[in-house]
Amino acid sequence: MSDRSLAKSEALWRRAERVIPRGVYGHQNAAAHGARHPKFLARGEGSRVWDVDGNEYVDWMCSYGPMVLGYRNAAVDRAVAEQMELADTMSLPGEPMVEYAEMLVAKTQGMDWAIFGKNGADATSWAIDTARAHTGKSKIVKGHDAYHGARPWTIPQLPGVPSHHREELIEVAWNDVDGLRAVFAAEGEDIACVILSPYDHQLHHAEFAGPGWFEAVRELCDSHGAVFVMDDVRAGFRFDMGGSHVAFGATPDLICYSKAIANGYALSAGLGVEALRSAAEQIFFTGSFFFQSSSFAAAKATMEEMERTDAIATIHRIGQLLIDGLEAQAEAFGLPFVSTGPSAMPSFKFNNDPKYAMFHEWCDVATEHGAYLHPAHNWFVSAAHTEEDIDLTLRATEQAFAAVAKSSQGCLSSGPG
Amino acid sequence: MSDRSLAKSEALWRRAERVIPRGVYGHQNAAAHGARHPKFLARGEGSRVWDVDGNEYVDWMCSYGPMVLGYRNAAVDRAVAEQMELADTMSLPGEPMVEYAEMLVAKTQGMDWAIFGKNGADATSWAIDTARAHTGKSKIVKGHDAYHGARPWTIPQLPGVPSHHREELIEVAWNDVDGLRAVFAAEGEDIACVILSPYDHQLHHAEFAGPGWFEAVRELCDSHGAVFVMDDVRAGFRFDMGGSHVAFGATPDLICYSKAIANGYALSAGLGVEALRSAAEQIFFTGSFFFQSSSFAAAKATMEEMERTDAIATIHRIGQLLIDGLEAQAEAFGLPFVSTGPSAMPSFKFNNDPKYAMFHEWCDVATEHGAYLHPAHNWFVSAAHTEEDIDLTLRATEQAFAAVAKSSQGCLSSGPG
Repeated sequence: MSDRSLAKSEALWRRAERVIPRGVYGHQNAAAHGARHPKFLARGEGSRVWDVDGNEYVDWMCSYGPMVLGYRNAAVDRAVAEQMELADTMSLPGEPMVEYAEMLVAKTQGMDWAIFGKNGADATSWAIDTARAHTGKSKIVKGHDAYHGARPWTIPQLPGVPSHHREELIEVAWNDVDGLRAVFAAEGEDIACVILSPYDHQLHHAEFAGPGWFEAVRELCDSHGAVFVMDDVRAGFRFDMGGSHVAFGATPDLICYSKAIANGYALSAGLGVEALRSAAEQIFFTGSFFFQSSSFAAAKATMEEMERTDAIATIHRIGQLLIDGLEAQAEAFGLPFVSTGPSAMPSFKFNNDPKYAMFHEWCDVATEHGAYLHPAHNWFVSAAHTEEDIDLTLRATEQAFAAVAKSSQGCLSSGPG
Repeated sequence: MSDRSLAKSEALWRRAERVIPRGVYGHQNAAAHGARHPKFLARGEGSRVWDVDGNEYVDWMCSYGPMVLGYRNAAVDRAVAEQMELADTMSLPGEPMVEYAEMLVAKTQGMDWAIFGKNGADATSWAIDTARAHTGKSKIVKGHDAYHGARPWTIPQLPGVPSHHREELIEVAWNDVDGLRAVFAAEGEDIACVILSPYDHQLHHAEFAGPGWFEAVRELCDSHGAVFVMDDVRAGFRFDMGGSHVAFGATPDLICYSKAIANGYALSAGLGVEALRSAAEQIFFTGSFFFQSSSFAAAKATMEEMERTDAIATIHRIGQLLIDGLEAQAEAFGLPFVSTGPSAMPSFKFNNDPKYAMFHEWCDVATEHGAYLHPAHNWFVSAAHTEEDIDLTLRATEQAFAAVAKSSQGCLSSGPG
């Protein structure tokens, strides 16, 4: 349909497959996205990325979250460059760590202190360790199919993971207050913590806390001496600068951040209430690069720039334009296209498309036409996205809706799925 | 003894204690180092660092290993800056990851493929997960008191760690071939792997593999279907660019790197033999910043620069000058000062100093006089250290030996400890 080439991307993939298991491991493996998706990117600027063949895209993945102010944001990159003139990884931490801890603690509602790591899973795993040290208990309650990082305690179903990790993990359905009460009634003496995201962000749908859900979590944790951990790694800094728990109405004991807090520089954070400080002090939490001053310089600049520009408002406005535009287009095509996520992290699917085959094709065609769309994950909106990006995206998705309409030839109805 | 001030360091520490558990958590907490040690650094250049009060030091910790070519190495930082003009964290990996995987696999003796993370513990924990997926077994054999990262599986004695982590971990004494055979005879059916560093680098001493040690590890792993993991996180790139296992005579199945491979930029690597590729493909190993192109640009430049300048030879030559100089000084003072580590990662102590009180005082006085010396960890030598650094260091340690000689007043003998 287009004369665009992915030849370099494919050649690089063949090189990668020789020296890297699966070519690319983990969440950035694009092999299943579709034949029109690139597998490697070469450059980014604002909301746009260019693949290794030079094709340009409006990027609605934002690096799976980290890019919140745009690629190569001038304020953030300048702060990093200035810090790099002095020092980065050193034999002791630098002042930027302390300054950022002060800023983040002051900004985050209800939290009294902070620690920092490199990966989101550093923070979520640290929270589990801290909750266990605080309570002397071992079991973890999480949402059904919720993702909290690539570590054995949270994905115990994988090959080779010792069985006790499965025995220690209890999954509950979001908003099932009775189910949660039953879990605490049966196993409350062994439960160290409940870990939840501010809303349930699954690959193809989102579910928000209904009335009483977070209140029940808080009450059951209090009555059983368990810790309420908010995993704000994915959603953080896209809903409220004081923490997504403010926007979604939760009152956690520990909060985990990563992804967006330093606009793409490697950093994660854990914050806690005063009552958990002594437990945190018993944990041995460290890493060779945890104290990189460049990451703290980036995080300080990211927070300042987001507040100065009211970035979250822009993100929600643009995200809503995207949702509205896609829904209008779908309606014009008579296709049962559904938006399920919040405007800052939209999520879409077709009804009557149980294996997401239509949605895959739709994303693949849109990507070919310049809107980089992921077929099996929520998307992310940044403050660098513009109305022009919406126009370009809708031009691409018009092709995609047309292709899907043609493929489906009446197989899809516009009724509920 | 000197008019140097640590006032800003102490003031910053008081700020840190309010917002960060223990002020600084983990291995970079300097509270126990001594009153003359700074707690925060502001700047680095080559082999030198400056604390937040402006005091200058010859840094023999090299960020606990990462700094191998010197702070702000021009070639590495230029490669990073050039990459940052294009992209860093993106929605897909970039070519630098593949290029570096090719370089590292080609360079590392006996390894066929590579993966990358951010922390050393990302790599060692990944190796454990891979060994368990490959073998279907759960137990881990490690050296007595050996450090392999701040994760529950390797420090199961900490508060809150579920007991199964202790049950799955078996410690053996280095070079105890009979002990290792007995462990395999008793529990070989459950052993997933043996994880060892290329030599046993403890806080105050080092032990090298004796005749038959690594051969026995290899033989027992082969005969029981276990995996031999080499944790080269701390020693890597200071002994042999093909891997420290080459220098120390081991033949592992998996190798873990981090610290020095990107001269301070956050990167870790796992490498493996072909037989373990399919196990690695079953592991879900990922993180938000695993694919930062800047880290791969730094790693490529670090490898090239180390080879171009024969950095390892420089490190060993300078390290030996340091050892020789300190030993001559100790002899002149009649003090029982002992060198135990290799020249690239020296380790010292006084005999008849069971609680290391003398050694602490000695390091503290030397630090006051401009040689940043750690009292409870091996040190690290970089290729940026020079003869001038040796001279400055020996001037500082002369003060330190004099102070210790005065404090000890004959309590120390020069006999064996």
